[in-house]
Amino acid sequence: MTTKTLKDLYIHSLSDIYSAERQMTKSLPRMARASTNPGLRSAFETHLEETQGQIERLDQVVDASGIKLKRIKCVAMEGLIAEGQEQIDEIEKGPVLDTALIAAAQKVEHYEIAAYGSLIALTKQLGETTAAKLLADTLEEEKATDQKLSLIAEEKSAAESLRQ
Amino acid sequence: MTTKTLKDLYIHSLSDIYSAERQMTKSLPRMARASTNPGLRSAFETHLEETQGQIERLDQVVDASGIKLKRIKCVAMEGLIAEGQEQIDEIEKGPVLDTALIAAAQKVEHYEIAAYGSLIALTKQLGETTAAKLLADTLEEEKATDQKLSLIAEEKSAAESLRQ
Repeated sequence: MTTKTLKDLYIHSLSDIYSAERQMTKSLPRMARASTNPGLRSAFETHLEETQGQIERLDQVVDASGIKLKRIKCVAMEGLIAEGQEQIDEIEKGPVLDTALIAAAQKVEHYEIAAYGSLIALTKQLGETTAAKLLADTLEEEKATDQKLSLIAEEKSAAESLRQ
Repeated sequence: MTTKTLKDLYIHSLSDIYSAERQMTKSLPRMARASTNPGLRSAFETHLEETQGQIERLDQVVDASGIKLKRIKCVAMEGLIAEGQEQIDEIEKGPVLDTALIAAAQKVEHYEIAAYGSLIALTKQLGETTAAKLLADTLEEEKATDQKLSLIAEEKSAAESLRQ
């Protein structure tokens, strides 16, 4: 049993999301390449840059909290990415794959929204105010990305209805 | 390529969430047994009943849409459950494990919120109004569960601060 205290759980959860974000930096370029909708492709490219910034922010959190992350692999993100990759492999490029990619990306965003939400709750319990602030900035970015994806889905669906 | 149309994607996504909910009916009793906080244990038990109702609702969606689900396993939910199980195995029963279980459950809820949100968008594009209404009921339940878990986390954290 290596996780005994809330601080241990905090380190474990940070290590987990660090792995998740690193996995996303490899997955987002594949998702961008698979998209045909220009708005969607650009959203994935923008979110890749944002994700790189979020990893740097996690490094700042680690420094602020004076901790050392563990080398773990986030298995949940592995599953989420596998699900998205399955869609890329199974569906021909075009509007249907774009819709599937939006859904896959929103699942990832929601994973991160839940993860950062729980992490922020932990930082508050631990009195880690600098970390809480940094993580809150990332949480806002994840929520904004989720909303942007919903908007792209709506615009896309409206444009496709007009074409029918 | 078995997924070519939006309808194919709808069937695939429904089959996926069906598998996810079924996996949850096996995972929730384990999470309830691992909880020491009575409010949390009861939330997991209530959500198990709700999940069984959501599976019945998915059967109604399938009937309303006149489709047949595919036998697939939701790999993303498999990863999410594995992550929660890892916590149960690694952390001794008590307040720290309870906090970890809340976080794990909120990740699951957010997965489902994203999944049902995307499904509802699909039903609207496909003109599946009965299905859209049924799925919207489930989406509200998932959001309410997520909020209930946030509340339990806050109350728990306030009670623990008082005890320190």
